[in-house]
Amino acid sequence: MKFAQFQAGQVIEVGPYDMTEDEVLSFARAYDPQWFHTDPEAARQGPFGGLIASGWHTCGIAMRLAADHVLRGSESFASPGVSNLRWPHPVRPGDRLTLRITVNEVRRSTKRPELGVVEWTWRMTNGEGREVLQLDATSLFKLQSAN
Amino acid sequence: MKFAQFQAGQVIEVGPYDMTEDEVLSFARAYDPQWFHTDPEAARQGPFGGLIASGWHTCGIAMRLAADHVLRGSESFASPGVSNLRWPHPVRPGDRLTLRITVNEVRRSTKRPELGVVEWTWRMTNGEGREVLQLDATSLFKLQSAN
Repeated sequence: MKFAQFQAGQVIEVGPYDMTEDEVLSFARAYDPQWFHTDPEAARQGPFGGLIASGWHTCGIAMRLAADHVLRGSESFASPGVSNLRWPHPVRPGDRLTLRITVNEVRRSTKRPELGVVEWTWRMTNGEGREVLQLDATSLFKLQSAN
Repeated sequence: MKFAQFQAGQVIEVGPYDMTEDEVLSFARAYDPQWFHTDPEAARQGPFGGLIASGWHTCGIAMRLAADHVLRGSESFASPGVSNLRWPHPVRPGDRLTLRITVNEVRRSTKRPELGVVEWTWRMTNGEGREVLQLDATSLFKLQSAN
């Protein structure tokens, strides 16, 4: 999509992404080697009754869905950050994940007219409709200044 | 470390973690396939003058440093979320990253005395001392309720 296609109030749903145990394990071994992410046997005895994905992995899946289906071909070039990042429910192997993006605000920077700014809320849910991720993100788009 | 070892005001520095171009590319191909993360040639002509790591990859590196040096052997079992996540400066291949964690608050849940809560600020910097990540996180620890 292009910056010009975004508008406040718009809702974009993308997915699904199917999470596997292999993927949970390989992400966690690289980036979050805590036992409830890396050791299926120990995790079965733990507070979640089974392996759960790293929260950062959950963010990565949401990013992948957004990159493939929303940002591909856009003028997106950066994000300064994210607010209110929450993992209300863990992601487990076998989960089928869907990302719902609500556009909150679309504007041009007044100081830098070649800069487009989109504020949006991302919510990802599993196949049972439980939310596994919430966040409010800002994305920046590099536009023609003359537009 | 154990929950009992954390106290407000404590500062914990861990690292370094050396980022490589291969790692930037492989994370981005899996989770954030935008051209400034995946295409070194295009990135060289882009706004950053070279390849930069996905912000979620930057978060993963910070998590890895915390998991290896701070949470290993602890009673940590979950995090409800993160606030004020910022990427003030991009991570580039060759960067040597260090994580500085400041403990803001350590408490037992009043409703669930077996639950330990740590609120901390994570800041990661590159070898030139520029901040590449800031966030405020909450971590949960499963304790003996009788303590």
